[in-house]
Amino acid sequence: MESQTERASTTPSADASEVQMRILMNECVENCLSCFRSCSELVPHCLGMGGEHANADHIRLLSACSVICETSAKMMMLSSEYHTETCRICATICRACAEDCERIGPDDPMMSRCAGVCRRCADSCEKMSAH
Amino acid sequence: MESQTERASTTPSADASEVQMRILMNECVENCLSCFRSCSELVPHCLGMGGEHANADHIRLLSACSVICETSAKMMMLSSEYHTETCRICATICRACAEDCERIGPDDPMMSRCAGVCRRCADSCEKMSAH
Amino acid sequence: MESQTERASTTPSADASEVQMRILMNECVENCLSCFRSCSELVPHCLGMGGEHANADHIRLLSACSVICETSAKMMMLSSEYHTETCRICATICRACAEDCERIGPDDPMMSRCAGVCRRCADSCEKMSAH
Amino acid sequence: MESQTERASTTPSADASEVQMRILMNECVENCLSCFRSCSELVPHCLGMGGEHANADHIRLLSACSVICETSAKMMMLSSEYHTETCRICATICRACAEDCERIGPDDPMMSRCAGVCRRCADSCEKMSAH
Repeated sequence: MESQTERASTTPSADASEVQMRILMNECVENCLSCFRSCSELVPHCLGMGGEHANADHIRLLSACSVICETSAKMMMLSSEYHTETCRICATICRACAEDCERIGPDDPMMSRCAGVCRRCADSCEKMSAH
Repeated sequence: MESQTERASTTPSADASEVQMRILMNECVENCLSCFRSCSELVPHCLGMGGEHANADHIRLLSACSVICETSAKMMMLSSEYHTETCRICATICRACAEDCERIGPDDPMMSRCAGVCRRCADSCEKMSAH
Repeated sequence: MESQTERASTTPSADASEVQMRILMNECVENCLSCFRSCSELVPHCLGMGGEHANADHIRLLSACSVICETSAKMMMLSSEYHTETCRICATICRACAEDCERIGPDDPMMSRCAGVCRRCADSCEKMSAH
Repeated sequence: MESQTERASTTPSADASEVQMRILMNECVENCLSCFRSCSELVPHCLGMGGEHANADHIRLLSACSVICETSAKMMMLSSEYHTETCRICATICRACAEDCERIGPDDPMMSRCAGVCRRCADSCEKMSAH
């Protein structure tokens, strides 16, 4: 999954800031797809656990995070200028999802891992929302 | 596709503003799905027409509009509070897409029709972005 | 959402079977989008109900049905020849989902309604899977 | 994106074939997401190139491949039994897309790269379609 980086390195006329932006966008697509996967896989895990894990609001937040990560990835893969807007919302939802995972499953390795993936995606999307 | 309206009418304790909000959200999901369909179907039409219709920026805007309409519909179907954010962006992209369709295909019935669907979705999403 | 029908009626050179096929496909896209909506909205309803409604296998089947209906609609909106394959699987999953909704919520109006929407989508997809 | 592998390695009661299956599914989700990305990013590249690259049938096939890869990934992430069906179709579409990319852009590095990603995804999905 390194196509954007490769393109950057083979475009001699791109100046430094443009190359830097492509590297950041490439990382952001990767982080959005990882978070899309992590949240999507956590839904059946949480439903199987039951109790607080399967609470409707927690499943809703995981699902919303999955949807917005997929959407932000799609906007960047299209090279749409609107990725700045979707990345901004994505960062907000990822932060909320990370907090919810840590609150509900502080000792559940899958929940802790997902919280980390959400935070990395949020950081990456925040950088992109400025471009 | 009237489930939200039906639920509204069978919930006696809901007050007037809550019922009104459910009716608006029900319409907005419907408008987002119609616009998702209209923009998605326009992509192969435009590619088949060639020329200005198949311009990369026009196809990109149609595709971005299709993606955000699907996303806004999903957030509302999930009953996620974040639909206010996705509806706000959706309105922006739908207005840009409507203008582009009218500029490129003023005499093409499918383009004119899509512009109308985009405007109706934008109006509906603007109302939802306030709730 | 009648663009395919409209196009059919304004294409004088299309012969009878081609017009008939476009009408069926138009209906099938509509049925897939309705079922995508019905199953998507049922997930938060079932999670809120708890008990058997919120069983992991039931939520998984509703989610799988939502995903395949969205996919079949997309393949037809793209005019992809592969819609015959996605419609065939869509019919299978919709039938399984209808049965599950009726088994779990025989007296729940939203579950009964969703079962009907799934059956209508299955019938429609079965016709398309032959074309 | 290694959650399935991690789970496999920390489940002592899973027998060898079950562990093997989880490793294959984990790889297949990864391959589907890579192919979803590769095909999605190739669409704006091809539209920008024009000529045969921007041919409506080629864009349609890239789009169909992107849709089915996303769908197969979602079915596996849900742990839905229907992933066998979506993986089977995914393999078929990925092979067709790989051939089309090689036919149209034998000297275009992005097209060649995408063909390879499609072939790897097809191989992986074929294995999963048997389970």
